[in-house]
Amino acid sequence: MTDSAAIPSVIEDRREAWLAELFDFLRIPSISTDFDRVDEVRAAADWLEAQLASAGCTETAIWETAGHPVVYGAWRGAPDAPTVLVYGHYDVQPEDPVELWSSPPFEPEIRDGKLFARGSVDDKGQLYVHAKALEAWMRATGSCPVNVVFLIEGEEEVGSPNVAGSVQEHLDELRCDAVVVSDTTMFAPGLPTLTNGLRGMAYLQIDLQGPNRDLHSGMFGGAVVNPAETLARMLAACRDENGRITIPGFYDDVREVPAHEREDWTHLPFSDDEYRASLDVDALIPSEHSTLECLWAQPTFDVNGLLSGFTGDGSKTVLPATAMAKVSMRLVADQDPERIADAFEAYMHEIVPAGVKMTITRMHGGKPWSASRDHPILQAASRALERGFGAETVFIREGGSIPLVATLEELFGVPTVMMGFGLPDENAHAPDENLDVGNFFDGIASAAYFFEELAKSKSGE
Amino acid sequence: MTDSAAIPSVIEDRREAWLAELFDFLRIPSISTDFDRVDEVRAAADWLEAQLASAGCTETAIWETAGHPVVYGAWRGAPDAPTVLVYGHYDVQPEDPVELWSSPPFEPEIRDGKLFARGSVDDKGQLYVHAKALEAWMRATGSCPVNVVFLIEGEEEVGSPNVAGSVQEHLDELRCDAVVVSDTTMFAPGLPTLTNGLRGMAYLQIDLQGPNRDLHSGMFGGAVVNPAETLARMLAACRDENGRITIPGFYDDVREVPAHEREDWTHLPFSDDEYRASLDVDALIPSEHSTLECLWAQPTFDVNGLLSGFTGDGSKTVLPATAMAKVSMRLVADQDPERIADAFEAYMHEIVPAGVKMTITRMHGGKPWSASRDHPILQAASRALERGFGAETVFIREGGSIPLVATLEELFGVPTVMMGFGLPDENAHAPDENLDVGNFFDGIASAAYFFEELAKSKSGE
Repeated sequence: MTDSAAIPSVIEDRREAWLAELFDFLRIPSISTDFDRVDEVRAAADWLEAQLASAGCTETAIWETAGHPVVYGAWRGAPDAPTVLVYGHYDVQPEDPVELWSSPPFEPEIRDGKLFARGSVDDKGQLYVHAKALEAWMRATGSCPVNVVFLIEGEEEVGSPNVAGSVQEHLDELRCDAVVVSDTTMFAPGLPTLTNGLRGMAYLQIDLQGPNRDLHSGMFGGAVVNPAETLARMLAACRDENGRITIPGFYDDVREVPAHEREDWTHLPFSDDEYRASLDVDALIPSEHSTLECLWAQPTFDVNGLLSGFTGDGSKTVLPATAMAKVSMRLVADQDPERIADAFEAYMHEIVPAGVKMTITRMHGGKPWSASRDHPILQAASRALERGFGAETVFIREGGSIPLVATLEELFGVPTVMMGFGLPDENAHAPDENLDVGNFFDGIASAAYFFEELAKSKSGE
Repeated sequence: MTDSAAIPSVIEDRREAWLAELFDFLRIPSISTDFDRVDEVRAAADWLEAQLASAGCTETAIWETAGHPVVYGAWRGAPDAPTVLVYGHYDVQPEDPVELWSSPPFEPEIRDGKLFARGSVDDKGQLYVHAKALEAWMRATGSCPVNVVFLIEGEEEVGSPNVAGSVQEHLDELRCDAVVVSDTTMFAPGLPTLTNGLRGMAYLQIDLQGPNRDLHSGMFGGAVVNPAETLARMLAACRDENGRITIPGFYDDVREVPAHEREDWTHLPFSDDEYRASLDVDALIPSEHSTLECLWAQPTFDVNGLLSGFTGDGSKTVLPATAMAKVSMRLVADQDPERIADAFEAYMHEIVPAGVKMTITRMHGGKPWSASRDHPILQAASRALERGFGAETVFIREGGSIPLVATLEELFGVPTVMMGFGLPDENAHAPDENLDVGNFFDGIASAAYFFEELAKSKSGE
């Protein structure tokens, strides 16, 4: 058994060097959704492979896929110890609306202890924590208490269409005793957090084509079906006036949250008033459920984008030929994204009126996931976080989606440790995305201690 | 009394020269809705003033307004004859989506007898008909049977906010015995047409602000009110499932069409099947009224533009901070645009849910208008068109709006002769706007004959 006593001083010693490395990583605009950024995505993968090697991995590889590549790395110097698989993603969200950023999204900058850059919290900064945890062990002791395998994909922000295929091709390299992911948030500053539930997602685009060209709304309005108005009617038909989603069959597979878990949530430091104030809104969606339950354990229907007709300054009296909406539904256990997408498509085909042609495109989907808080691996992670942050760990769920988590659990039969170092107000997917620098370093310590706690827990079994 | 016998040969003789002039006019991108095009709008006004002088006007002026200027011109060489006021507009619609044009919108081009350019039919080409009708008389006889006054504004496409003020300032110069406007269409090729009714309009923009920034739809979705989805619900609440507009009080002032006028419309060459085929749609809006009545004598509710969230390629899981819609309602006699805008705003304020802030902007409005087909001035115009086109004149209404027509009738107590030379498929307000070259020249002849018919009709009174 190795000794973690030197870990804190190694982290302190490497502080500036590791921040400089992270800055380099964040400067690469690896936007997976943008076909013009393919080379930058590749550059981020190459950079990361080299860094995994210098952190201590003795095996590294770039695995090609039909889309962006997967970065693999492994240190296997503890043959009798368990193996931890670190999953993360080096791709990032688009930067727009870029004019709302306080500093350029790909020029990292620290202000008031926060590191501002696209990808800082989601997920480059968080995945890098685990590379540095391995490096901390290597520098402190020349070894690591567990074997560590990295599986870092480049398509998480487009729904992870190819990583599951890579996993299937490389089951031998990836076989593991625990999975750890840092792509979630702490519940509040100073509150180390494990996430034992995630929502899934079904994301679709609807395109309506009305007349074969844009028309003068005076000459044609009143007779010709307006695709923008029709789209509004169809979207509005997806929820009733009480906020309940009206897609037939939508709630069929929704599982109730265990009563004790829901009870624990009521003790978390959360105030509807403060939440509303932080968003500058006077009300939330009316619901019979608490706000946390709405966010973590209830499914949603959201419109993510709308485009039709004339959208510039001034007025244009056009009856538009086309209208487009992007919609997504967040799902909870045991909703299945394919079944929900089927139900949505069937409902849209049922209600679309004559006079327009409809095309529905499935953009991506992911399964919801949840795990028991009492599992020994989650308990080991809980102890590691308490050591790294010096505070008691809380268990929460999250409203976001990480499609691969459910897949990895199915494949390896182990729960994923969702060890998040982000904070709720760090603007993932929005302008001014940032990461608390203190949490980055406490995260490295926690991840290092997790390797030790897991080794102890397994050897004690 | 002057003699119109030489008019046809003058028109024939000047054919190429007048087309070249119109090309020059159409090359000026006088888009009134675009703040970056102010200089081009001014250039069009200056160009037109010079052309009115060379066509025979002995008075011309540019009248400044709070917005784009008004062009004035007059020939007053027939003191005992009536005075005709020609109203038109030299501003044009925006050219976008410019990529859908077959040739550049401001590089006029004749293909298959059609002149393609933004403004060709709406309204540069049509207003220019009357300048050339005056010139034809001057070249043929050195005089004109009536006095002719031109009032050509530069803000019709933004709702004519300032021309009424100019009219009030210049009542003496504008006093007239008849108004003629060519900014409508013929019912079909070869069918000379007078329009005795126009719809009015109320055009508004709705902006919803939800949270104070774009949010991650996973982390916040289900609790935070989504402005895009809310906007869809609000727009959908403006019509019921039978297509009837549900804004309270909306239909209160709608006047029934006289039975004999509706009866005449059934004899016009119009086929729902061909109309649908021309637009490539499988159905029209269901209605108890005929299609022509829906287009001419029923009010509408149309969505002209929608914008919210992520609208690029791919998917972004954003809960948007804002959502925008542009909506317009076409009105029929005796609906009042201010009262309708009031009713719409009140309804939106009634149904907007908590959780979003709403701003409504009134973009522009115009009154509906209709006139009796039996009025002597409309009968004189009917005879002139029959001479110019060699076919019997039909009376129709139009679905579009020309805000000043109602104003001029109120001011001078005379009906407007709506003598349209466009065709229904000439794409006003859309890509590939065009004007039939034959109708342009038959229009010049008709407008010239109208001067003569009006003089005869008045002297016979």
